[in-house]
Amino acid sequence: MATATVHPNIALVKYWGKRDRDLNLPSTGSLSMTLSDFATTTSVVFGAAQDEVMINGELATGLPASRVLKHLDLIQPDRAPARVVSTNNFPTAAGLASSSSGFAALTLAALKALNIDHTPAQASILARQGSGSASRSIWGGFVEWRRGVKKDGTDSHGLHIAPPDHWKLNMVIAVVDQGQKSVGSTEGMLRTMATSPMYSAWVSSWQKDLDGARQGILDQDLEMVGRAMEASTLKMFATMFTSSPPIRYWRPASVAIQDEVSKLRKAGINCWWTMDAGPNVKVLCEPEDAPAVADALQHHVEDVHTLGVGGHPVVEE
Amino acid sequence: MATATVHPNIALVKYWGKRDRDLNLPSTGSLSMTLSDFATTTSVVFGAAQDEVMINGELATGLPASRVLKHLDLIQPDRAPARVVSTNNFPTAAGLASSSSGFAALTLAALKALNIDHTPAQASILARQGSGSASRSIWGGFVEWRRGVKKDGTDSHGLHIAPPDHWKLNMVIAVVDQGQKSVGSTEGMLRTMATSPMYSAWVSSWQKDLDGARQGILDQDLEMVGRAMEASTLKMFATMFTSSPPIRYWRPASVAIQDEVSKLRKAGINCWWTMDAGPNVKVLCEPEDAPAVADALQHHVEDVHTLGVGGHPVVEE
Repeated sequence: MATATVHPNIALVKYWGKRDRDLNLPSTGSLSMTLSDFATTTSVVFGAAQDEVMINGELATGLPASRVLKHLDLIQPDRAPARVVSTNNFPTAAGLASSSSGFAALTLAALKALNIDHTPAQASILARQGSGSASRSIWGGFVEWRRGVKKDGTDSHGLHIAPPDHWKLNMVIAVVDQGQKSVGSTEGMLRTMATSPMYSAWVSSWQKDLDGARQGILDQDLEMVGRAMEASTLKMFATMFTSSPPIRYWRPASVAIQDEVSKLRKAGINCWWTMDAGPNVKVLCEPEDAPAVADALQHHVEDVHTLGVGGHPVVEE
Repeated sequence: MATATVHPNIALVKYWGKRDRDLNLPSTGSLSMTLSDFATTTSVVFGAAQDEVMINGELATGLPASRVLKHLDLIQPDRAPARVVSTNNFPTAAGLASSSSGFAALTLAALKALNIDHTPAQASILARQGSGSASRSIWGGFVEWRRGVKKDGTDSHGLHIAPPDHWKLNMVIAVVDQGQKSVGSTEGMLRTMATSPMYSAWVSSWQKDLDGARQGILDQDLEMVGRAMEASTLKMFATMFTSSPPIRYWRPASVAIQDEVSKLRKAGINCWWTMDAGPNVKVLCEPEDAPAVADALQHHVEDVHTLGVGGHPVVEE
């Protein structure tokens, strides 16, 4: 038996679209910040009477259970029946990145339980095949997920850009809606790839955003990171809006918070927004500005979380 | 002296971007519905003591006045001083298409006052040079604005697709904000052309929307028109969102109304939304559904107008 506690990550430069669906290889590179406080804790024990998956205290069935078990099959094809117990201390599946920490924790706990030696990059490649964004939650701090060019995906994994203590940034999360999103990420990506006339422009224009965000992180230049993040975010949503039928995750409160961030910036507060496949808005700022940002966001939604930069996974037997 | 009364038009397939700025030649074809009720009435008299432009009861100065006078210079380069009096019976410059009726009325009144013989296409070419969308307000009913391919713009003018009585559609307009828009159309187009990585996809993908909307109008097939209109609208906004800095005309109420239209459609009401360079939302539907649509929109904004298909310009001496 082994247990892994892993923080989710939020993409500052976005992942949307796959160059290989089976191997979960992305069409673009991406870059994330690992979050503090929010975490998934997952225990895996092999040698149970039969496969069993508990998620947030309930027996999982259907797709959520089969995705977990299929992932264990990938890590060890001839494995024994397993019992998996996974708990999030934050809302699941509303664009709060629970699948990033979920599949990273599952990967690290299973590798440990099976005593499989591995590098972080090897764990990242396995985690990627469970859920793309999980490839970035193998480290704390700031992580790039290389697009890679190889067909087998061996060069498409996380790269550690900067450790958690490199830069004490804050991310203020406005929870517009806790519910399950209307269109799941994988379904949304496939629809975008098949139908959006803007998709090829997305795939050919991400490198500049990634280079800008990476340099901004290394230089601790929030405006540089923020500009790259907002550009990447809006391009991703442009591909969603132009899919057929259109994918519209924005709610009125999402736009109200976008406007609020513009207003805060005009008032001299250096802050920048991003969103993912869901209506919630995440605002990046320096810790000294986080209380003012959180106050402003609380005019629009009840549920606001201020998080810092999260640490590395913790894995125990 | 001559007076023209002209209805504004709302693009169902959008115009955004210029292939020639001086001649106001568009990068894409577009297609519109002329609105009933809303109108601009413009009188022009040549031989005044000096140039004078009155707009909505006030003496115009600066850019609004010089655009009007420059347009008269275009129509007759060696003209006498002119007095122009123009009045809108609807809000000016908030994405309610006042420049479409404004420059079409100015063109038609000036041509009449000068006794210049002209075809509607010739008037459309002149109106286009005042404001692109004005090229479509030379007719009532449904009008296509051909992109054209000639450098001199002589093939880029309106084409009358169907007369006002062809199809009794309604457009329900939700006025989210009556104020001047944050970024003017020309400035927004130039920024999009210079900075959006999605712009070339927009320019290479409009023909399908135009063909769909045209066929839908000829067949009186609202779903066909609606799908083409929403796709064209969302692609246009995708280019705006991905401009640098981003152009964001959507307000929270704009998104609330987009959601409302989705809800109405799920409830069996055949209705479709569009927006222009501003926060207002226009919903296309059959007349028998207009009261239900207007009721639903009034939950989000106070100011809702239900308009029909407008007639041809009226020009009098």
